[in-house]
Amino acid sequence: MSNEEQKSLNTKNEVNIENEDRRKFFGKTALIGAGAVVAPMTAAMFASTAQAQRKDIAMSPVVHPGELDEYYGFWSGGHSGEVRIMGVPSMRELMRIPVFNIDSATGWGITNESKAIKGDDYLAGDTHHPHMSMTDGRYNGKYVFINDKANTRVARIRCDVMKTDKILHVPNVQAIHGLRVQKAPYTKYLVCNGEFEIPMNNDGKESLEDVSTYRSLYNVIDAETMEMAFQVMVDGNLDNTDADFDGRYFASTSYNSEMGMNLGEMIAAERDHVVVFDLKRCEAAVKAGKFKTYNGNSVPVLDGRKGSELTRYIPVPKSPHGLNTSPDGKYFMANGKLSPTVSVISIKKLPDLFNDKIKPRDTVVAEPELGLGPLHTAFDGRGNAYTTLFLDSQIAKWNVEDAIKAYNGEKVNYIRQKLDVHYQPGHNHTSQGETRDVDGKWLVVLCKFSKDRFLPTGPLKPENDQLIDISGDEMKIVHDGPAFAEPHDCIMVHRSKIKTKKVWSRDDRMFAATVAMAKKDGVDLMGENKVIRKGKNKVTVYMTSVAPNYGLTEFKVKLGDEVTVVVTNLDMVEDVTHGFCMTNHGVQMEIGPQQTSSVTFKADKPGVQWYYCNWFCHALHMEMRGRMLVQA
Amino acid sequence: MSNEEQKSLNTKNEVNIENEDRRKFFGKTALIGAGAVVAPMTAAMFASTAQAQRKDIAMSPVVHPGELDEYYGFWSGGHSGEVRIMGVPSMRELMRIPVFNIDSATGWGITNESKAIKGDDYLAGDTHHPHMSMTDGRYNGKYVFINDKANTRVARIRCDVMKTDKILHVPNVQAIHGLRVQKAPYTKYLVCNGEFEIPMNNDGKESLEDVSTYRSLYNVIDAETMEMAFQVMVDGNLDNTDADFDGRYFASTSYNSEMGMNLGEMIAAERDHVVVFDLKRCEAAVKAGKFKTYNGNSVPVLDGRKGSELTRYIPVPKSPHGLNTSPDGKYFMANGKLSPTVSVISIKKLPDLFNDKIKPRDTVVAEPELGLGPLHTAFDGRGNAYTTLFLDSQIAKWNVEDAIKAYNGEKVNYIRQKLDVHYQPGHNHTSQGETRDVDGKWLVVLCKFSKDRFLPTGPLKPENDQLIDISGDEMKIVHDGPAFAEPHDCIMVHRSKIKTKKVWSRDDRMFAATVAMAKKDGVDLMGENKVIRKGKNKVTVYMTSVAPNYGLTEFKVKLGDEVTVVVTNLDMVEDVTHGFCMTNHGVQMEIGPQQTSSVTFKADKPGVQWYYCNWFCHALHMEMRGRMLVQA
Repeated sequence: MSNEEQKSLNTKNEVNIENEDRRKFFGKTALIGAGAVVAPMTAAMFASTAQAQRKDIAMSPVVHPGELDEYYGFWSGGHSGEVRIMGVPSMRELMRIPVFNIDSATGWGITNESKAIKGDDYLAGDTHHPHMSMTDGRYNGKYVFINDKANTRVARIRCDVMKTDKILHVPNVQAIHGLRVQKAPYTKYLVCNGEFEIPMNNDGKESLEDVSTYRSLYNVIDAETMEMAFQVMVDGNLDNTDADFDGRYFASTSYNSEMGMNLGEMIAAERDHVVVFDLKRCEAAVKAGKFKTYNGNSVPVLDGRKGSELTRYIPVPKSPHGLNTSPDGKYFMANGKLSPTVSVISIKKLPDLFNDKIKPRDTVVAEPELGLGPLHTAFDGRGNAYTTLFLDSQIAKWNVEDAIKAYNGEKVNYIRQKLDVHYQPGHNHTSQGETRDVDGKWLVVLCKFSKDRFLPTGPLKPENDQLIDISGDEMKIVHDGPAFAEPHDCIMVHRSKIKTKKVWSRDDRMFAATVAMAKKDGVDLMGENKVIRKGKNKVTVYMTSVAPNYGLTEFKVKLGDEVTVVVTNLDMVEDVTHGFCMTNHGVQMEIGPQQTSSVTFKADKPGVQWYYCNWFCHALHMEMRGRMLVQA
Repeated sequence: MSNEEQKSLNTKNEVNIENEDRRKFFGKTALIGAGAVVAPMTAAMFASTAQAQRKDIAMSPVVHPGELDEYYGFWSGGHSGEVRIMGVPSMRELMRIPVFNIDSATGWGITNESKAIKGDDYLAGDTHHPHMSMTDGRYNGKYVFINDKANTRVARIRCDVMKTDKILHVPNVQAIHGLRVQKAPYTKYLVCNGEFEIPMNNDGKESLEDVSTYRSLYNVIDAETMEMAFQVMVDGNLDNTDADFDGRYFASTSYNSEMGMNLGEMIAAERDHVVVFDLKRCEAAVKAGKFKTYNGNSVPVLDGRKGSELTRYIPVPKSPHGLNTSPDGKYFMANGKLSPTVSVISIKKLPDLFNDKIKPRDTVVAEPELGLGPLHTAFDGRGNAYTTLFLDSQIAKWNVEDAIKAYNGEKVNYIRQKLDVHYQPGHNHTSQGETRDVDGKWLVVLCKFSKDRFLPTGPLKPENDQLIDISGDEMKIVHDGPAFAEPHDCIMVHRSKIKTKKVWSRDDRMFAATVAMAKKDGVDLMGENKVIRKGKNKVTVYMTSVAPNYGLTEFKVKLGDEVTVVVTNLDMVEDVTHGFCMTNHGVQMEIGPQQTSSVTFKADKPGVQWYYCNWFCHALHMEMRGRMLVQA
């Protein structure tokens, strides 16, 4: 995103929470909040700043009533199919963003606008890796991208409205796993891995059982158009990925270099590899037409298998999982999973590797032994790395330069601390830790099991998102955060990076097609209420909403009609969202202030069918309803 | 529930968190949790008990890492269609229970077992009022019931496994709103209101526009069988309801006594009414056959309109909303909404009313003026009531006996305190406040708008569940809880009341039909992996799961086959849930330890289709996958 584009985001409609006046306003509200009768709660009543400054005491995660969190957390919702916005450090869920799931409340996957974005009727998804678009290695507040492993999709969330606006089904591959963005000079591309190995021509014929025809592809997607740029065929499968800070190299782990088809085969080799991609060489190859296409689509597929100029394969110990770039831009780190080590790859040695001046293992500058089951590594910007140890249920804090010295034979203890977490940690992330703005304040560890940490909830238990203060010399757990399936990964973005809209703009592209339909029908959405019969069995109903009234309190259709209801919320007041629910038809939707939403359903029940506002809007909310009269 | 039944719940499989040994275990874990290297976090580092004992300082909502909440909160998820388990006072979401929604993670609405319970393919629901079954006016930990306003349904959640086990579509009415349980001697019935007015014969013919044929019905449902017991036809519509503590009287508000069809008509009258039902008289009438049936079903519909012996109509000021029984069993309270008053109805005067010894308004013993928009009232067991004032954005704390004195002409100020809340409060509830175990510690206020209380999240903002310490003389807000649409109502149940299962019992009725199918197919679910072709196009695949392996790593089907996959999780270890996801088919599901789950889908894509475990289970979780080979 250019500086101009960034600036153009600054409209009147934006919330700027760092704005001086607004902060004063918040302060005042907090006071009013605690009431004139009762003295306002002060920090001293919970943890105090004074306490936090004591060396042996952790920073408090408590955010008092009326105060704001410092960071937006973007949390994968795992197989819930959604993305969650968390407040950090309070670890409160501020919002759910439906992405690959069906959401009953907002009507995501039910409304015509969301169905046009989803493009399928799948009921499930499996999100893993949320990452924000960047400019010069820093979050730019524009988009969050997220993969769907379950159905081989990638989605984009607009951070001005915090809604999903694009979903791409990635062709030629199966199960999108690792996902990251190009960090510099800006996020031109998002990159992601096809994890599962399938025949390049997956037609269920000759290739079906011929594993030698199976491939995994690296996927490069244009971040603005959300269309495929190109794919790169590799040896082995692909797991996690990350990018450098110069916009040239991307690296992915492969845990199945064996191309095994079952557990025993997949873990047979003592070493698998990291594959490094050279973006410039890839772009040049596409430009030069050095690609093939498959399965009837036009996506350029480059051949990046061993021997290609596009890639290099760096052997690393057994079944590596996480791939993390240190925020100083120096290292790719591959986490060993079945090896107790993390392999530290020097990014500045990669040009020599690609120019065949050194061998792949020459790029490895450290391989510290940390404990059992290293999965992911985070950073504090002070030279320390934090690696989750799944089997040990620990975080290992270690010093990168000391690990390099040890690798070079010096007698140095690179381990700084090991901290028990609860239990079986997967991803971890530090506040802004994947960017140049890494600040070394908070570490979140997403624990896969919670066991005895919360009130028991039956056979299914929550996960545990633990918040750890890393601002001092020692890590300290300050909060246990129960979470529904499954916070797979997360990022923490300083609130100064994000500017949201207070109400919808009438020219928003989310409902532009519906606005165009109304125009074609000659209907002024901002004032007209109209029922239009289209052909024999189709009826379109246009209505406005202003709390506590719909523009229409009744309309008539015939049994069997396909009814499209279009509601335009004329309310200008921030936070006054309306709903539209047609009882006994299984459909409902959100209509935010100044938004237009529409839903289509079959009027398959005769008689009086009430519709009502299901988003509490007014003291007379219960009375905000009307009748669809269905003539038999 | 009898004492015997209650005792029979106590099996080996139960978690009893009040158990002495287990508490010690938790203590130990908490210590280990904080690590050997770092000193454990102590309460003093955040709020301290000592502080909480100071009179001017609130109780802390902070629950330290490794400690447990004191209360289970059961929260309606509003139009998200789910129920949430919250920890109180930490206000952390411990679990989501899918009910009327489709849940991508657990496969609720996707698996065969959940579809059999749901009985429809609706994608949305609108839950409002969660209430737990009781014995002698105290929570018994067995079931939580919840309404669906959107699609006229009622659901039951089993608290041993925290899953929905029954959903009933209520006939003859539209939009189930208020819901409560019979409190004593035990919850034989749950009761709920049909809110919207529809023709008794809603066939879209003569009655369609003849509003004089429109009715609302009170619904009485057998809590064990979840079948309709009977319905009572009333004058006016029905909004909220509650029960007495003797098992005889139920009362509901009606905001539309006018039977108006639009806002103006609905709010025309200065007084609407509370309708009181006499359960014994209703049961006798059903027994005596004094009922009609409608719409081709056999549900007895009693006539409880004005003049009936079954009901009494008590006039109360304008458009009453909430109906709350005081936990001393003395009063029904109707909250005025468009009147600034709450009408206090003496339950002990109801026999005289039903015997025509007094007039309806003679039962009203107080009508305190509290502020604008009273919606719901909660209680502290010390004689005080807490009423939400929607328009004023306040809680009014008032003394009930003083309000009665004032109504009798004494000069008494019954208002104890007014506290600003943020903003527009709807339901409120105190800890165990609808039962004899009311303890007056916490008040939760569910605010419909949050405005500036949280980091901005775009046009859609969270609601705000505020936690208020009511243990002292003054109410104090101690926590702002952002929440996704829409915590409509909640209850708080002491943890000692609930005993959950650690793992599934193999004879659980949730998957009994699937177990029976396997038996018929001659398959031993606890060990066999088998593919059975049934007829031309149907295939049933039985497989086991033990981390990190499925019993089958490949199976073959033909393009177009209807495939049913049945997975039995043999893991005995608490918290080791497996998933099953068939990539690119939009289906996935949860299989808890010792559970059997199944899903049916069409194999509509040729070639290699990988399935995988999407519930993180093991260090080799990524490798837990297999191939469905689809022959073209």
